[in-house]
Amino acid sequence: MSHALPTADDGWTYYSAPGTCALAVHIALHEAQAPFQLVTLDFGAQQQQSPDYLAINPKGRVPALKTPQGVLTETPALLLFVAQSFPQAGLAPLDDAFALARLQSFNSYLASTVHVAHAHKRRGARWADDAAAIEAMKAKVPQTMTACAQQLESTLAATAAQGPFVMGAQYSVADAYLYTLSSWLEGDGVDVPAFPLLLAHQERIGQRPATRRALEESGG
Amino acid sequence: MSHALPTADDGWTYYSAPGTCALAVHIALHEAQAPFQLVTLDFGAQQQQSPDYLAINPKGRVPALKTPQGVLTETPALLLFVAQSFPQAGLAPLDDAFALARLQSFNSYLASTVHVAHAHKRRGARWADDAAAIEAMKAKVPQTMTACAQQLESTLAATAAQGPFVMGAQYSVADAYLYTLSSWLEGDGVDVPAFPLLLAHQERIGQRPATRRALEESGG
Repeated sequence: MSHALPTADDGWTYYSAPGTCALAVHIALHEAQAPFQLVTLDFGAQQQQSPDYLAINPKGRVPALKTPQGVLTETPALLLFVAQSFPQAGLAPLDDAFALARLQSFNSYLASTVHVAHAHKRRGARWADDAAAIEAMKAKVPQTMTACAQQLESTLAATAAQGPFVMGAQYSVADAYLYTLSSWLEGDGVDVPAFPLLLAHQERIGQRPATRRALEESGG
Repeated sequence: MSHALPTADDGWTYYSAPGTCALAVHIALHEAQAPFQLVTLDFGAQQQQSPDYLAINPKGRVPALKTPQGVLTETPALLLFVAQSFPQAGLAPLDDAFALARLQSFNSYLASTVHVAHAHKRRGARWADDAAAIEAMKAKVPQTMTACAQQLESTLAATAAQGPFVMGAQYSVADAYLYTLSSWLEGDGVDVPAFPLLLAHQERIGQRPATRRALEESGG
């Protein structure tokens, strides 16, 4: 792609990058059948730190969603926004505050605990300058991500009688997010087959057309 | 308090601990004038790891909110749940999906970036076993938290023309959360007076009756 980032004069533009958590909202956008323009950033070329992109998202990260009302960031916020913007897609329990809170709690755990644990493998420089410290962080990732997998497996077990999705019987944006982050487990040194519900979830969500389309488009 | 954790047979029970992020939802509960029973855990006695508490919240952390429908965790999810459960309190823009997404984005940034940066000061053992690595994490906290303060100051500046709150003219649960986490900045080595909007926000929210009551009750 060129170094000038395309933007839509109207409608939504979604900024993603291969191999990142931005896959989650990308999947949700397709599940919602939302019209949007996709912009794939080249992290290898540090495009997320380019002046053009920093003008869109000063945090210099993905995902970002540009809308006519302004730019939105942070995966849990974007997932709820997509679900609320396309209620007919049924991607969140919008009329049940407690069920929605369970969904939000799950997504928040993925963002604040699971994603953060994973980030200590390659992004340790965010939290320490010392090379040995960064190596020490890397070394603990299999342990922290295994603990996360146990927690996620318990969550799936709690609703397994109702159905195979995070919320039980009903697919939701949480499934797109769980799919995205649980696809990192194997590379993080987790024995994924030890978590059969997680493994089955990964396979099930990976087969959905919206997931396959997002993976193809993002080169993921 | 005794080692047996009290629970309410009906109504809400909120589990908190002094000096933690649990202050945010505690403030929001008072802003909403929500009826609830408060349980303050003694982290010094590792009460969050007691069998009684792990039966309520297997993550062994605060906050947790026990309701007749089940237990909820994760601050951003609880804040939205309180706002949705007491709509008359006007604690979130519930009828405007874009404005709500801005609120959720702000809260998610606090949870996933600001709180995580802060946690590397005292909770480094979550992400590395090596003592020198944990010291290296501590050493970087003033730098990472200063970067967070800059980002937060920019966010307040973007809406300062509309009003002094995170969302501009209207107080929201995001103000309770920002107050809670920005009260950590000074102790984390940030030159807070260099961020005048943050400092003014801290003073303004600290004077609200709901904030003062939550601080008194939690001994914070």
